[in-house]
Amino acid sequence: MNYQLDPILAANTRHVTSLTLCEVRIQNEARFPWVILIPKMDNIIEIIDLSDENQLQLMREIAQVSKAMNIVFDSDKLNIATLGNIVKQLHFHVIARYEADLAWPNPVWGFFEQTASYGADALSRRILTLKTHLIN
Amino acid sequence: MNYQLDPILAANTRHVTSLTLCEVRIQNEARFPWVILIPKMDNIIEIIDLSDENQLQLMREIAQVSKAMNIVFDSDKLNIATLGNIVKQLHFHVIARYEADLAWPNPVWGFFEQTASYGADALSRRILTLKTHLIN
Repeated sequence: MNYQLDPILAANTRHVTSLTLCEVRIQNEARFPWVILIPKMDNIIEIIDLSDENQLQLMREIAQVSKAMNIVFDSDKLNIATLGNIVKQLHFHVIARYEADLAWPNPVWGFFEQTASYGADALSRRILTLKTHLIN
Repeated sequence: MNYQLDPILAANTRHVTSLTLCEVRIQNEARFPWVILIPKMDNIIEIIDLSDENQLQLMREIAQVSKAMNIVFDSDKLNIATLGNIVKQLHFHVIARYEADLAWPNPVWGFFEQTASYGADALSRRILTLKTHLIN
Protein backbone atom coordinates (compact mmCIF):
# COMPACT_ATOMS: atom_id res chain seq x y z
CA MET A 1 0.00 0.00 0.00
CA ASN A 2 1.04 3.54 -0.63
CA TYR A 3 0.95 5.92 2.26
CA GLN A 4 2.84 8.82 3.68
CA LEU A 5 4.21 8.40 7.20
CA ASP A 6 3.93 11.46 9.43
CA PRO A 7 7.40 13.10 9.76
CA ILE A 8 7.36 13.06 13.60
CA LEU A 9 6.57 9.33 13.58
CA ALA A 10 9.24 8.79 10.94
CA ALA A 11 11.84 10.59 13.08
CA ASN A 12 11.04 8.85 16.38
CA THR A 13 10.40 5.30 15.21
CA ARG A 14 11.97 2.60 13.03
CA HIS A 15 10.32 0.06 10.74
CA VAL A 16 9.79 -3.43 12.19
CA THR A 17 7.43 -5.15 9.80
CA SER A 18 4.34 -4.74 7.69
CA LEU A 19 1.07 -6.51 8.49
CA THR A 20 -2.04 -6.63 6.32
CA LEU A 21 -3.41 -3.26 7.43
CA CYS A 22 -0.68 -1.69 9.54
CA GLU A 23 2.98 -0.94 9.44
CA VAL A 24 4.58 -1.85 12.79
CA ARG A 25 7.33 0.48 13.98
CA ILE A 26 9.34 0.59 17.18
CA GLN A 27 9.64 3.78 19.21
CA ASN A 28 13.32 4.67 19.54
CA GLU A 29 13.03 4.90 23.31
CA ALA A 30 15.20 2.43 25.19
CA ARG A 31 13.44 2.78 28.56
CA PHE A 32 10.16 1.26 27.38
CA PRO A 33 9.44 -1.60 24.96
CA TRP A 34 7.09 0.35 22.71
CA VAL A 35 5.75 -0.31 19.25
CA ILE A 36 3.34 1.64 17.09
CA LEU A 37 0.84 0.35 14.53
CA ILE A 38 0.00 2.71 11.69
CA PRO A 39 -2.71 1.81 9.16
CA LYS A 40 -1.09 2.10 5.75
CA MET A 41 -3.66 4.54 4.41
CA ASP A 42 -3.66 8.30 3.99
CA ASN A 43 -6.09 10.70 5.65
CA ILE A 44 -7.07 8.46 8.57
CA ILE A 45 -7.19 10.25 11.91
CA GLU A 46 -9.79 8.48 14.05
CA ILE A 47 -10.58 4.75 14.28
CA ILE A 48 -14.00 5.58 12.86
CA ASP A 49 -12.36 6.98 9.72
CA LEU A 50 -11.54 3.35 8.86
CA SER A 51 -14.09 1.10 7.19
CA ASP A 52 -15.88 -1.35 9.50
CA GLU A 53 -13.77 -4.19 8.12
CA ASN A 54 -10.53 -2.29 8.62
CA GLN A 55 -11.56 -1.44 12.20
CA LEU A 56 -11.82 -5.17 12.87
CA GLN A 57 -8.53 -5.84 11.09
CA LEU A 58 -6.92 -3.17 13.28
CA MET A 59 -8.13 -5.05 16.35
CA ARG A 60 -6.76 -8.34 14.98
CA GLU A 61 -3.37 -6.72 14.47
CA ILE A 62 -3.42 -5.04 17.91
CA ALA A 63 -4.02 -8.50 19.38
CA GLN A 64 -1.28 -10.05 17.24
CA VAL A 65 1.21 -7.40 18.32
CA SER A 66 0.06 -7.67 21.95
CA LYS A 67 0.78 -11.39 21.95
CA ALA A 68 4.23 -10.81 20.44
CA MET A 69 5.00 -8.10 23.00
CA ASN A 70 3.93 -10.42 25.82
CA ILE A 71 6.18 -13.19 24.56
CA VAL A 72 9.19 -11.00 23.89
CA PHE A 73 9.05 -8.79 26.96
CA ASP A 74 7.12 -10.76 29.60
CA SER A 75 5.83 -7.50 31.01
CA ASP A 76 3.36 -6.79 33.82
CA LYS A 77 0.82 -4.87 31.72
CA LEU A 78 0.24 -3.72 28.18
CA ASN A 79 -0.78 -0.11 27.57
CA ILE A 80 -2.67 0.23 24.30
CA ALA A 81 -3.80 3.61 23.08
CA THR A 82 -4.47 6.01 20.27
CA LEU A 83 -4.21 9.66 21.29
CA GLY A 84 -3.25 11.73 18.25
CA ASN A 85 -3.28 15.06 20.04
CA ILE A 86 0.04 15.96 18.45
CA VAL A 87 0.49 13.57 15.51
CA LYS A 88 -2.86 13.38 13.73
CA GLN A 89 -2.17 10.34 11.54
CA LEU A 90 -3.93 7.38 13.21
CA HIS A 91 -1.40 5.36 15.16
CA PHE A 92 -1.85 2.88 17.99
CA HIS A 93 0.70 2.56 20.77
CA VAL A 94 1.37 -0.88 22.27
CA ILE A 95 3.71 -0.45 25.23
CA ALA A 96 4.99 -3.19 27.52
CA ARG A 97 4.94 -1.84 31.06
CA TYR A 98 6.65 -3.08 34.20
CA GLU A 99 5.79 -2.21 37.77
CA ALA A 100 9.44 -1.27 38.17
CA ASP A 101 9.65 0.97 35.09
CA LEU A 102 10.44 4.67 35.40
CA ALA A 103 6.96 5.99 34.70
CA TRP A 104 4.82 3.38 36.50
CA PRO A 105 1.90 3.66 37.18
CA ASN A 106 1.61 6.77 35.03
CA PRO A 107 1.29 6.63 31.25
CA VAL A 108 4.57 7.08 29.38
CA TRP A 109 3.42 9.90 27.08
CA GLY A 110 4.65 13.31 28.09
CA PHE A 111 6.27 11.84 31.17
CA PHE A 112 9.80 12.69 30.16
CA GLU A 113 11.16 15.81 28.53
CA GLN A 114 13.76 13.89 26.58
CA THR A 115 13.87 10.47 25.04
CA ALA A 116 16.64 7.94 25.60
CA SER A 117 17.43 6.43 22.22
CA TYR A 118 18.67 2.89 21.75
CA GLY A 119 22.26 2.25 20.79
CA ALA A 120 22.41 1.15 17.14
CA ASP A 121 23.14 -2.50 17.93
CA ALA A 122 20.46 -2.72 20.60
CA LEU A 123 17.89 -1.22 18.25
CA SER A 124 18.77 -3.64 15.46
CA ARG A 125 18.54 -6.60 17.80
CA ARG A 126 15.18 -5.50 19.17
CA ILE A 127 13.75 -4.97 15.69
CA LEU A 128 14.91 -8.42 14.64
CA THR A 129 13.39 -10.08 17.72
CA LEU A 130 10.04 -8.36 17.21
CA LYS A 131 10.03 -9.12 13.49
CA THR A 132 10.62 -12.80 14.23
CA HIS A 133 7.53 -12.82 16.46
CA LEU A 134 5.38 -11.00 13.94
CA ILE A 135 5.51 -13.29 10.93
CA ASN A 136 2.32 -12.58 9.04
CA MET B 1 -24.17 -11.08 32.10
CA ASN B 2 -22.87 -11.39 35.60
CA TYR B 3 -19.71 -9.55 36.45
CA GLN B 4 -18.13 -7.69 39.30
CA LEU B 5 -17.15 -4.08 38.65
CA ASP B 6 -13.83 -3.00 40.14
CA PRO B 7 -14.47 -0.82 43.24
CA ILE B 8 -12.32 2.10 41.99
CA LEU B 9 -14.23 2.14 38.70
CA ALA B 10 -17.50 1.88 40.62
CA ALA B 11 -16.56 4.87 42.78
CA ASN B 12 -15.36 7.15 39.96
CA THR B 13 -17.90 6.40 37.25
CA ARG B 14 -21.68 6.12 36.76
CA HIS B 15 -23.67 3.70 34.60
CA VAL B 16 -24.76 5.00 31.20
CA THR B 17 -25.93 1.94 29.31
CA SER B 18 -25.19 -1.66 28.53
CA LEU B 19 -24.09 -2.85 25.09
CA THR B 20 -23.72 -6.44 23.92
CA LEU B 21 -20.25 -6.95 25.37
CA CYS B 22 -19.55 -3.86 27.45
CA GLU B 23 -21.10 -1.74 30.11
CA VAL B 24 -20.66 1.94 29.27
CA ARG B 25 -19.98 4.23 32.23
CA ILE B 26 -19.18 7.93 32.45
CA GLN B 27 -16.20 9.20 34.41
CA ASN B 28 -17.43 11.62 37.07
CA GLU B 29 -15.00 14.30 35.88
CA ALA B 30 -16.66 17.45 34.64
CA ARG B 31 -13.60 18.87 32.85
CA PHE B 32 -13.45 16.13 30.22
CA PRO B 33 -16.24 14.26 28.38
CA TRP B 34 -15.01 10.79 29.24
CA VAL B 35 -16.66 7.40 29.08
CA ILE B 36 -15.36 3.94 29.88
CA LEU B 37 -16.27 0.60 28.30
CA ILE B 38 -15.94 -2.45 30.52
CA PRO B 39 -16.47 -5.95 29.10
CA LYS B 40 -19.09 -7.59 31.32
CA MET B 41 -16.92 -10.58 32.14
CA ASP B 42 -14.80 -11.47 35.13
CA ASN B 43 -11.04 -12.08 35.09
CA ILE B 44 -10.28 -10.14 31.92
CA ILE B 45 -7.20 -7.91 32.16
CA GLU B 46 -5.72 -7.65 28.67
CA ILE B 47 -7.50 -7.41 25.31
CA ILE B 48 -5.94 -10.76 24.45
CA ASP B 49 -7.73 -12.34 27.43
CA LEU B 50 -10.92 -11.93 25.40
CA SER B 51 -11.91 -14.49 22.75
CA ASP B 52 -11.19 -13.47 19.16
CA GLU B 53 -14.89 -12.79 18.60
CA ASN B 54 -15.15 -10.65 21.74
CA GLN B 55 -12.04 -8.69 20.68
CA LEU B 56 -13.86 -7.79 17.47
CA GLN B 57 -17.06 -6.98 19.36
CA LEU B 58 -15.02 -4.69 21.62
CA MET B 59 -13.82 -2.82 18.54
CA ARG B 60 -17.39 -2.52 17.24
CA GLU B 61 -18.47 -1.03 20.55
CA ILE B 62 -15.46 1.32 20.72
CA ALA B 63 -16.48 2.58 17.27
CA GLN B 64 -20.14 2.89 18.32
CA VAL B 65 -19.19 4.89 21.40
CA SER B 66 -16.71 6.99 19.40
CA LYS B 67 -19.44 8.00 16.97
CA ALA B 68 -21.77 8.91 19.83
CA MET B 69 -19.04 10.95 21.54
CA ASN B 70 -18.33 12.78 18.27
CA ILE B 71 -22.00 13.65 17.82
CA VAL B 72 -22.62 14.69 21.40
CA PHE B 73 -19.41 16.63 22.04
CA ASP B 74 -18.12 17.72 18.62
CA SER B 75 -14.58 17.49 19.95
CA ASP B 76 -11.24 17.98 18.19
CA LYS B 77 -9.84 14.50 18.90
CA LEU B 78 -10.80 11.27 20.57
CA ASN B 79 -8.33 9.64 22.94
CA ILE B 80 -8.94 5.89 23.15
CA ALA B 81 -6.90 3.74 25.48
CA THR B 82 -6.62 0.82 27.82
CA LEU B 83 -3.90 1.21 30.43
CA GLY B 84 -4.83 -0.79 33.51
CA ASN B 85 -1.70 0.05 35.47
CA ILE B 86 -3.82 0.78 38.54
CA VAL B 87 -7.22 -0.83 37.88
CA LYS B 88 -6.54 -4.27 36.41
CA GLN B 89 -10.06 -5.06 35.16
CA LEU B 90 -10.03 -4.45 31.40
CA HIS B 91 -11.56 -1.06 30.66
CA PHE B 92 -11.28 1.19 27.63
CA HIS B 93 -11.29 4.95 27.94
CA VAL B 94 -12.94 7.04 25.23
CA ILE B 95 -12.28 10.69 25.94
CA ALA B 96 -13.41 13.67 23.84
CA ARG B 97 -10.53 16.15 23.74
CA TYR B 98 -10.46 19.81 22.76
CA GLU B 99 -7.44 21.85 21.83
CA ALA B 100 -8.58 24.30 24.50
CA ASP B 101 -9.01 21.74 27.29
CA LEU B 102 -6.95 21.93 30.45
CA ALA B 103 -4.65 19.00 29.71
CA TRP B 104 -4.10 19.47 25.95
CA PRO B 105 -1.99 18.10 24.30
CA ASN B 106 -1.10 15.79 27.19
CA PRO B 107 -3.14 12.73 28.09
CA VAL B 108 -5.67 13.30 30.88
CA TRP B 109 -4.56 10.40 33.10
CA GLY B 110 -2.50 11.42 36.06
CA PHE B 111 -2.57 15.02 34.90
CA PHE B 112 -4.49 16.34 37.87
CA GLU B 113 -4.19 15.49 41.52
CA GLN B 114 -7.89 15.90 42.13
CA THR B 115 -10.98 15.31 40.08
CA ALA B 116 -13.73 17.86 39.52
CA SER B 117 -17.01 16.00 39.88
CA TYR B 118 -20.16 16.96 38.02
CA GLY B 119 -23.06 18.55 39.86
CA ALA B 120 -25.88 16.02 40.25
CA ASP B 121 -28.12 17.64 37.62
CA ALA B 122 -25.31 18.01 35.11
CA LEU B 123 -24.31 14.38 35.55
CA SER B 124 -27.89 13.15 35.07
CA ARG B 125 -28.30 15.23 31.93
CA ARG B 126 -25.03 14.03 30.45
CA ILE B 127 -25.89 10.38 31.15
CA LEU B 128 -29.28 10.83 29.49
CA THR B 129 -27.76 12.47 26.41
CA LEU B 130 -25.19 9.73 25.98
CA LYS B 131 -27.75 7.00 26.58
CA THR B 132 -29.96 8.47 23.86
CA HIS B 133 -27.07 8.24 21.39
CA LEU B 134 -26.18 4.68 22.36
CA ILE B 135 -29.38 2.81 21.67
CA ASN B 136 -28.29 -0.74 20.96
